Amino acid sequence: MTDALAITRDLIRCPSVTPADAGALGVLDALLKDAGFATHRVTFSEAGTADIDNLYARIGAEGPHITFAGHTDVVPPGDEAAWSLGAFSGEVKDGYIHGRGAVDMKGGIACSVAAVLDYLRSNDSKPRADGKGSISFLITGDEEDVSVNGTVKLLKWAAERGERFDHCVLGEPSNQEVMGDCIKIGRRGSQSGTLIVEGKQGHVAYPHRASNPVPDISRLIVALSDEPLDHGSAQFQPSNLEFTTVDVGNTAGNVIPGLARAKFNIRYNDCHTQDSLRALVEERLRAACGNRIRAHIDWLPSNSNVFLTKSGPFTDLAVAAIEEVTGRKPELSTTGGTSDARFISSYCPVIEFGLVGQTMHQIDERASVADIATLTKIYRGILDRYFA
Amino acid sequence: MTDALAITRDLIRCPSVTPADAGALGVLDALLKDAGFATHRVTFSEAGTADIDNLYARIGAEGPHITFAGHTDVVPPGDEAAWSLGAFSGEVKDGYIHGRGAVDMKGGIACSVAAVLDYLRSNDSKPRADGKGSISFLITGDEEDVSVNGTVKLLKWAAERGERFDHCVLGEPSNQEVMGDCIKIGRRGSQSGTLIVEGKQGHVAYPHRASNPVPDISRLIVALSDEPLDHGSAQFQPSNLEFTTVDVGNTAGNVIPGLARAKFNIRYNDCHTQDSLRALVEERLRAACGNRIRAHIDWLPSNSNVFLTKSGPFTDLAVAAIEEVTGRKPELSTTGGTSDARFISSYCPVIEFGLVGQTMHQIDERASVADIATLTKIYRGILDRYFA
Repeated sequence: MTDALAITRDLIRCPSVTPADAGALGVLDALLKDAGFATHRVTFSEAGTADIDNLYARIGAEGPHITFAGHTDVVPPGDEAAWSLGAFSGEVKDGYIHGRGAVDMKGGIACSVAAVLDYLRSNDSKPRADGKGSISFLITGDEEDVSVNGTVKLLKWAAERGERFDHCVLGEPSNQEVMGDCIKIGRRGSQSGTLIVEGKQGHVAYPHRASNPVPDISRLIVALSDEPLDHGSAQFQPSNLEFTTVDVGNTAGNVIPGLARAKFNIRYNDCHTQDSLRALVEERLRAACGNRIRAHIDWLPSNSNVFLTKSGPFTDLAVAAIEEVTGRKPELSTTGGTSDARFISSYCPVIEFGLVGQTMHQIDERASVADIATLTKIYRGILDRYFA
Repeated sequence: MTDALAITRDLIRCPSVTPADAGALGVLDALLKDAGFATHRVTFSEAGTADIDNLYARIGAEGPHITFAGHTDVVPPGDEAAWSLGAFSGEVKDGYIHGRGAVDMKGGIACSVAAVLDYLRSNDSKPRADGKGSISFLITGDEEDVSVNGTVKLLKWAAERGERFDHCVLGEPSNQEVMGDCIKIGRRGSQSGTLIVEGKQGHVAYPHRASNPVPDISRLIVALSDEPLDHGSAQFQPSNLEFTTVDVGNTAGNVIPGLARAKFNIRYNDCHTQDSLRALVEERLRAACGNRIRAHIDWLPSNSNVFLTKSGPFTDLAVAAIEEVTGRKPELSTTGGTSDARFISSYCPVIEFGLVGQTMHQIDERASVADIATLTKIYRGILDRYFA
């Protein structure tokens, strides 16, 4: 059996702090090439961002096609001196492998590679380079920061080459407490905007000659924050609007300002589309403004639509594989922040299942050695069922 | 009769844009010294501000003591090319003398000097250098900006020398539309503060783990803005609280901030003292916060207390002088912004009466030649009645 722990260690030892690659993709490229995958390194660029290297590797020529997605970039280690065993050591101690990315998500990638190589060795019929059934890897180095030269472009590139994906497993750390407690099958959408209120500048001693936008934007912030957008759906918690900042920037203490701005972010569920959500907020704004307050919203472009992978054969086989290995029936969850699954969901059904997320983004991030073995077995179980 | 128009012109031709003096005090010093006044030039300093020259001049050794106060500094001219006759020309055209400071308040000072010199020439009994009755001038070059090295320190300096003032006329442009329509007999106080709301920082996707101070400070802003502080008093319009800015400065669109700040200014009337006003606002803040919102106010030091010169013999004689010259019974007003009268009111009753304010602080500031003659006559009428 290919050693998932060794791959995790080799990946951790590449200090691939986003946007650096530091050799991480090369580790995977070599392993997959050896196993018969056709591998492609693709670099994407965009003005104002770093060039990012990506890896696409596929074995098999026809469907069904399952792809394992992930990212090798990691968040910065913070104070490296504060790490017990070094931020990039990959050292194993007391049953844990230590280092930035251990759970988010070099460990997850290592388990999927180990499971796939193991599966291929034990199955000489499918999938093969010339046979039915395909397995691929979509690995990016641009997930932890701006996510513009990563999965979103790699998917587009693959589609233009004629690649068709039937299902995807994204190995983000989905479990909350223990292995098997949670699969993510959807994510809320994210939509940001700026609320702008126009008043009329004037002297504080003559308020009747001015119109102060500060209490008015405050009224609108309260109105838009207080009324729920919905009460949740079958699969999602309620949508939520948070104002993240309000700024006037008036330094003159005797002047009523002429303009006020506040920024907000909405995490929204499948009660809404981006368009219906914007329309709802605009309608509430108009109601709160009445005929008196002059306000409008500048919406920011958003590539984070809400998505949901409906329960069915694919989620069933993942649940079965998890239950077999862990004895737990995972929750099908849609909570938490965004991930590259929001891009993948436009191409094929996607689930997120990986390690336990508790130490992600923290000092002394570490993965349980036992969990790495468990996750590898689960991925292997998914493959067995997928191609059965 | 001493020519008030000529003094106005000589003062305007000194480009005494605050804090520059540009010879303006020297014009007055020479005129007053010639007329027998003991004159004193006093320079005050304070770290972080420009040194400012001030003029105190007195004739007479005993009371009753009337003092004429004013400032020779002016606000900047703005775009000098936009002025029809030059910002510091002092030119007379179509019945108006043009230039920065014409009404605010070089014209007012010129009228008081002209009236006093005229009065002294026509009255050989009082006040005289050795006689009963005193007239003085308190003239500063620091009114239009920070007002720290001007009247407030000149009054203290004079008090330490043993000067006692019985009444003061401040020649600020008090009239709204025509000469004689308004005397200012008081001013509202001014008190500023910063409202600070503490929340708990967190990720917008997990609002239940955070506490967003943005909607909370918005609630407090609405609460403190909406409830009237009072409904006005016999002599004052209602007090008013205006939030002048609210700032969070959070640039991370996916982060709920931990702190929000808003600044406000209160113009308050004689229903309040500074202490009772602060207590009232603090009490309302506590009520609006309930047990949930953590907020407090940092009060700024304030030297702008509310004051009121009560109606009586002094205001009566000023009204009579105005009525005799203009045929109008002036309103006794307490509206508008602050002036140096807020400092003078701690030493003696003070009224503000000067030219018509309409062009003050504007391009093409100008004073009617007829108004200058009228104001000089009114000041002379005040002197006649004061020493009668």
